[in-house]
Amino acid sequence: MSEKALRYLQEHREDMLNRLYRFLSIPSVSTDSKHKQDIGKAADFLITYLEELSFTNIEKVETEGHPLVYGEYMEAGEDAPTVLLYGHYDVQPVDPIELWDSDPFKPELRDGRIFARGSSDDKGQVFMHLAVFEAYLKTAGKLPVNVKVCIEGEEEIGSENLYDLLQKNKEKFKADFAVISDSGMAEKNQPTILYGLKGFTGIEIKVTGPDHDLHSGMYGGAVRNPIMALSHILSSLKDKDEVITVEGFYDNVEDISDEERKLMDQAPGEDFIHATGIPEVASEKGYTAKEHTMGRPTLEVNGIYGGYQGEGTKTIIPSTATAKITCRLVPGQDPVDIQDKLVNHVNNSTPSGVTVEVKKEKLSAKAYKVEPTHPLIQKAAKSYTKAFNKDTVFLRMGGSIPVVEWFESIYQFPIVLLGFGTPEDRLHSPNESFPLDSFDKGMETLVYYWSEL
Amino acid sequence: MSEKALRYLQEHREDMLNRLYRFLSIPSVSTDSKHKQDIGKAADFLITYLEELSFTNIEKVETEGHPLVYGEYMEAGEDAPTVLLYGHYDVQPVDPIELWDSDPFKPELRDGRIFARGSSDDKGQVFMHLAVFEAYLKTAGKLPVNVKVCIEGEEEIGSENLYDLLQKNKEKFKADFAVISDSGMAEKNQPTILYGLKGFTGIEIKVTGPDHDLHSGMYGGAVRNPIMALSHILSSLKDKDEVITVEGFYDNVEDISDEERKLMDQAPGEDFIHATGIPEVASEKGYTAKEHTMGRPTLEVNGIYGGYQGEGTKTIIPSTATAKITCRLVPGQDPVDIQDKLVNHVNNSTPSGVTVEVKKEKLSAKAYKVEPTHPLIQKAAKSYTKAFNKDTVFLRMGGSIPVVEWFESIYQFPIVLLGFGTPEDRLHSPNESFPLDSFDKGMETLVYYWSEL
Repeated sequence: MSEKALRYLQEHREDMLNRLYRFLSIPSVSTDSKHKQDIGKAADFLITYLEELSFTNIEKVETEGHPLVYGEYMEAGEDAPTVLLYGHYDVQPVDPIELWDSDPFKPELRDGRIFARGSSDDKGQVFMHLAVFEAYLKTAGKLPVNVKVCIEGEEEIGSENLYDLLQKNKEKFKADFAVISDSGMAEKNQPTILYGLKGFTGIEIKVTGPDHDLHSGMYGGAVRNPIMALSHILSSLKDKDEVITVEGFYDNVEDISDEERKLMDQAPGEDFIHATGIPEVASEKGYTAKEHTMGRPTLEVNGIYGGYQGEGTKTIIPSTATAKITCRLVPGQDPVDIQDKLVNHVNNSTPSGVTVEVKKEKLSAKAYKVEPTHPLIQKAAKSYTKAFNKDTVFLRMGGSIPVVEWFESIYQFPIVLLGFGTPEDRLHSPNESFPLDSFDKGMETLVYYWSEL
Repeated sequence: MSEKALRYLQEHREDMLNRLYRFLSIPSVSTDSKHKQDIGKAADFLITYLEELSFTNIEKVETEGHPLVYGEYMEAGEDAPTVLLYGHYDVQPVDPIELWDSDPFKPELRDGRIFARGSSDDKGQVFMHLAVFEAYLKTAGKLPVNVKVCIEGEEEIGSENLYDLLQKNKEKFKADFAVISDSGMAEKNQPTILYGLKGFTGIEIKVTGPDHDLHSGMYGGAVRNPIMALSHILSSLKDKDEVITVEGFYDNVEDISDEERKLMDQAPGEDFIHATGIPEVASEKGYTAKEHTMGRPTLEVNGIYGGYQGEGTKTIIPSTATAKITCRLVPGQDPVDIQDKLVNHVNNSTPSGVTVEVKKEKLSAKAYKVEPTHPLIQKAAKSYTKAFNKDTVFLRMGGSIPVVEWFESIYQFPIVLLGFGTPEDRLHSPNESFPLDSFDKGMETLVYYWSEL
């Protein structure tokens, strides 16, 4: 069954690439309202494809924002498992456009890569799934699994309406497990299964001193400087050993075992110093940089501002100073609890003479982890290894995918992160691309995986 | 002689205010190169006025930056003293413009105040001197003193070229004493003579981590956050007791005597809390807010920036973070020495994983102090008291006027600080204004002072 499907993919490669290019040509930028029509076109592209594949209950599910594309195939029989396939058809903006070597919405093949916005994140990977379904349906006449397709148009703007939609339509999206192809491999052609993602929470701290900027000569010595107060607060959150000093922050954090630490340290991936230009790495005392990024929680100040930012000097005591902070969380940490602890810490460490306002970031997510030994994961790894002819590595990632947590909290089913991107794909940046190797071998992996199940 | 001059000022008040408004309408912001032409216009305004007053040797003295306006009146005779009148025609930027209740460059009279950028600092006060000269010249046909006028266009950017100019033209600017009206009274209509000013120095700290902004999920845990590093540096400069913790910072600081502390504490002046809206004052441990502002050195962060400053969240580790710092110094402290100590401290307290670059602010000045019993000071006090009908108080001020130190170091002559601003003027802030009372009684004071001499 899989042999025929693979041959079909080879024979129709040209047509499929051309069809993918049409999909990539639609500028479905979700953050920019002037692309509202293009968002609609990209959703319609998917609906047409699903119709051709004879999926049923196809629906453009309207939301307060952009629609979600739904469709199902339930002909594999009651014994076959049902997979919920998640992806997104919206893309990031293309600015700064002048840094692109080719038009972001005119796909171009160069150096074995497809250059286009969305080629890797996530239209390319979504398309691969549909193409594999086509191959099975055109050759075997059926799919080895039941499928529910759920492809949203708001991932790049925080999946604002997805959680509510899932909550209100629990039965509709119900499945035995989920597959998400919206991530990458540790390096090109290195089969990689992500078995853990970090959670997420954040706050914004605004310190207010005087009600207007003051002359530092007239008031210096009488007034607490809001920037200095903010610095005292921030420096009390994390020490120079990169240990987060917020009370209770590490409570309930699941230890990473010695065995897992070894795996993390041996994991392939780019060299931090080479990739970032830093003079040396800085990680939590007692943990290597790889261990920290993959397995330990982090706290980062993402932005700060206050007072005079122009050229030269302006001798003021500013009225306010603001910092934005986000944390990446690990299993055991509850984002709401951590957010409360951050707020308490900030309130307790604010010096006299200023007031502080802490805004809680709305978006938050728990960390996610699945055992690498889970049969669904092991089968994915086997398919991956077979297609790429290389052992699969198992990684935890420092990033967060909120939908993963939502799936788990609503359905408690396993989630398989089968991503084919590479570190060189330049997601969210100019010159996004996706390797042809990933396109071909990724589809091969999917063919093996469905038949393996 | 003074009676007629006073009557002239009363009779021509409307015209004079209108002329002042024209001066204030010129956006002579010295720090912003796009206002270069406006700087020229403001200088020309002064030159035209001096020409009308039949001053001689009028000159727009070009510098590497903005020109200085010079002119002299030497008809008072050899027996009369020669005064060097210093002021500046440049102004601070107007940002944040949205906080102004009226256009900063369309002067508006409200609640007995002239609202405009520069109304108090320092165009308004410069103008008063010229108007008083006009009153004398139009009534008595002469001035009671010889005058050299020196009005620069770079005060708000640190008087970058003034010191060199004074050094190279010692003879030209030579006088028996100097008068500067670029300061304020302890409170509105309270005659105030400043007998001490603070010195000044500053640095800019730029912390660089990665060579581009990084995804906080992929790199958080491997990379030192430049904002956090900067916060550690800043919070190490001053503790929560407002004690500056830079090694050697207080070496050689002249103690303030118990008697002077008493005077400072009894000095009239606005209530800090009322004037600034702060919840409570914050001053150096062991000193009151008044003692600290007048007699103790300060260190302020004037501005900070780094990373994402827009709405919502952007989960990055920023590449850089920058802070601007200035200090106000007291007698005994050497600004160059203090600057070196700041640089050393920053270098020594920078954590690993980032690089730090400390830029030394070019402008620096020693603190200044004169004995309140000096006859030139006493005569100024008498004129002040006569015009305002209230005893004059003698104060030291937290602000710095570098030119005061330069005058003293070059000429060793006394400097009389005759300022008419008020604490409510909002210098350097939105809604700068100057009271009409100060405009009228200030000119009266000057009329008395010139005739007293």
